[in-house]
Amino acid sequence: MESLEQKISAAVTEAMPLAKSVFETLARDTADPAGGVTRASYGEGEQYAHGLLARTARELDLEVSADPGGNLYMTLPGRDRTAPAWFVGSHLDSVPKGGNFDGAAGVIAGVTALRAIQHAQITPARDITVMGVRAEETGSWFSGSHGGHLGSRMALGLIRPEEFEQAIRVDSGRPLGEHMRECGFDPEAVRGKPPHIDPRRVKGYLELHIEQGPVLERRGIPIGVVTSIRGSSRLPDARCLGAYNHSGGTPQELRQDAVVATAELIQAVDGKWQEVNAAGKDLVFNFGRIYTDAKIHSLAKVPGEVSFSVDIRSGEPDVVAMMREFVLRKADEIAARRNVRFELGRFGVSDPAVLDAGLRRDLHAGCHALGISTLDIASGGGHDAQEFVKAGIPAAMIFVSNDHGSHVAEEAMRLDDFELGTRLLAWRLARED
Amino acid sequence: MESLEQKISAAVTEAMPLAKSVFETLARDTADPAGGVTRASYGEGEQYAHGLLARTARELDLEVSADPGGNLYMTLPGRDRTAPAWFVGSHLDSVPKGGNFDGAAGVIAGVTALRAIQHAQITPARDITVMGVRAEETGSWFSGSHGGHLGSRMALGLIRPEEFEQAIRVDSGRPLGEHMRECGFDPEAVRGKPPHIDPRRVKGYLELHIEQGPVLERRGIPIGVVTSIRGSSRLPDARCLGAYNHSGGTPQELRQDAVVATAELIQAVDGKWQEVNAAGKDLVFNFGRIYTDAKIHSLAKVPGEVSFSVDIRSGEPDVVAMMREFVLRKADEIAARRNVRFELGRFGVSDPAVLDAGLRRDLHAGCHALGISTLDIASGGGHDAQEFVKAGIPAAMIFVSNDHGSHVAEEAMRLDDFELGTRLLAWRLARED
Repeated sequence: MESLEQKISAAVTEAMPLAKSVFETLARDTADPAGGVTRASYGEGEQYAHGLLARTARELDLEVSADPGGNLYMTLPGRDRTAPAWFVGSHLDSVPKGGNFDGAAGVIAGVTALRAIQHAQITPARDITVMGVRAEETGSWFSGSHGGHLGSRMALGLIRPEEFEQAIRVDSGRPLGEHMRECGFDPEAVRGKPPHIDPRRVKGYLELHIEQGPVLERRGIPIGVVTSIRGSSRLPDARCLGAYNHSGGTPQELRQDAVVATAELIQAVDGKWQEVNAAGKDLVFNFGRIYTDAKIHSLAKVPGEVSFSVDIRSGEPDVVAMMREFVLRKADEIAARRNVRFELGRFGVSDPAVLDAGLRRDLHAGCHALGISTLDIASGGGHDAQEFVKAGIPAAMIFVSNDHGSHVAEEAMRLDDFELGTRLLAWRLARED
Repeated sequence: MESLEQKISAAVTEAMPLAKSVFETLARDTADPAGGVTRASYGEGEQYAHGLLARTARELDLEVSADPGGNLYMTLPGRDRTAPAWFVGSHLDSVPKGGNFDGAAGVIAGVTALRAIQHAQITPARDITVMGVRAEETGSWFSGSHGGHLGSRMALGLIRPEEFEQAIRVDSGRPLGEHMRECGFDPEAVRGKPPHIDPRRVKGYLELHIEQGPVLERRGIPIGVVTSIRGSSRLPDARCLGAYNHSGGTPQELRQDAVVATAELIQAVDGKWQEVNAAGKDLVFNFGRIYTDAKIHSLAKVPGEVSFSVDIRSGEPDVVAMMREFVLRKADEIAARRNVRFELGRFGVSDPAVLDAGLRRDLHAGCHALGISTLDIASGGGHDAQEFVKAGIPAAMIFVSNDHGSHVAEEAMRLDDFELGTRLLAWRLARED
């Protein structure tokens, strides 16, 4: 008798022309004249993508609906329609001039998996709903005071009422609520009604996404099982203040040199990273911006001020907390020794989301059964999955190898790797448990 | 019998009202409405200062003349008028909105010393010429291709003919030669004639100047004997090039982080400085400018590029050469390890000027005899004295303690300290040898 693995692998291969066709149509019809694709959150490209996926789902005889926030749901009914359902999803918006795969790959993988389950003539034990999430790329599209991941947070009841007015689309200058209404959705209903997704009615959430970093690509491994979505602690506007002085005439030991002090802080964090990394813990850090004052600085002047940013991320909450402590303590120590002052500001903190251990074990078992080589990997970027974690829903993520990073037109996922990820997804969904 | 020290000390004290009056007149008549004083090189304030000093010298019956470049000479005749003469000088220009003492103190000290020698009824063995030098603050007043210290270099025959056209006054946009002619001087004569000062006719050059750094002030010592004028090696436009990447998704070890690499270079230079300093050698370094690209950098992006400047100074030629080597070698090592590239450019090198050992011994002996506490000190900034060294003339410098640095309206030299420096100067000039 044919094994589940054999059936699913064959069925996904059979469904791949569908995936390929949707990817191509989406790329063509949301192409940006300046390169890449542009699918604005609650804008033209995202609307088109939702329409395309809904049409595709209807052609597959899936049940299609949307919530008041505009999130799309495409459901393959299971045998027990009252049992908590699987949710599979990702977002359909993109950054401006972005790549075709970031987000869309997860929705297309979901629909392809459902098609494969149909091909394999399997009726799943419970409903499987593929979700096309709205407005995930909020870092690119919305300024103002909002909590990001607007679409999934609306579906899960995590959005604050004021965000509909306070999130401002950067291209139009108008609030989220207006853009939602223009697309035919209803911010009042989102605010007024219970959340569309009731966590008690969800078995689990699975999201396939391209890896945004280079780890899988460099190691030649097609699929990653995500351990956690890194939390961050950020100092967007840190400064070091010393004193400007003649650089030739001021002895080194009498200087209050903001650049040397800040360089020491950066080096100290790098040294700490080496220690944490060697201990097998997850950590990245970034001093993405650093600048002396262009109106005052000069070659021959001791730098009296430097501005910089700090971004510390880890999948492990205790590691981020420890690093915050480290930065504060080290800055104090350097300031005292070098006679400067650090004005770091307050850390902006977002907590890491640890993905469900049981689902991660399932995905590893699936990779083993399907002969897919895989790797545990932390996600550096944020994803809708972390909102499901916050809502108390077991969630897991499958990363697909991708070259050139994400948020760029050049992102490059191979369909062969996507196929392996979709097999893994379909395999888990088709299982009886 | 009264000792030379007693005679000179009393005579300088007697001459101090003259010094005070010239300082006050100069401050009043060259005051800048925006604060401090402004005495533009070959401009209004400098012209006024030269006129004031020439009038003062004539009232003292000194011989007064000028060279074709406009440098002022005020001579007290000696017994042997054919013997190589002492030259005592400094400059009379200032930076815009600068302090009253930087430069002028040296010329006023010279005139005050001559007045004291007259009071003491001493006829010196040889002529003593106090020189009011033109155009020393060229870093503030002239852009374009020139070698700085224009006045003293004209007097010593060190200026290149093309500098009269290539040095451009920053406020007018017009060349040095035009400004000289407007002040009544003759660039053609400077170009065409032998230099006004023949090194063989000079016994030595002495320059009193305020300290531009805080060393004497912090240590409560009124007078410094300058050991050398630091040379510099400069990288005005260095860059480190890495690769921009998503900061959350790119593991630390796969990054090409230009900021972390540059911070390591700065730290390495700081470490090397500690070593050199502990060995008792003279060194300062400065990374005065550092900046990531404001059009590209962000909190969440690995910094792919950083621009910075390096300024290394020492009074010891071998130290500067060693540090150049160190920076190049360290940058290579860091670049290889961190997968970045340093584009440092070529070092702009100016050699240190070591001041005359015999004259320095004389000044120390003078301090001892006069009961003045003193300190050996390197000069970080450039001075006309270094041009005399280049011309082969034994030269020495006396620093006077000064608060708040120089090139600022707030520079603060006490007249008590100035009086001690002037005693030391007059003591050396009044000696028979």
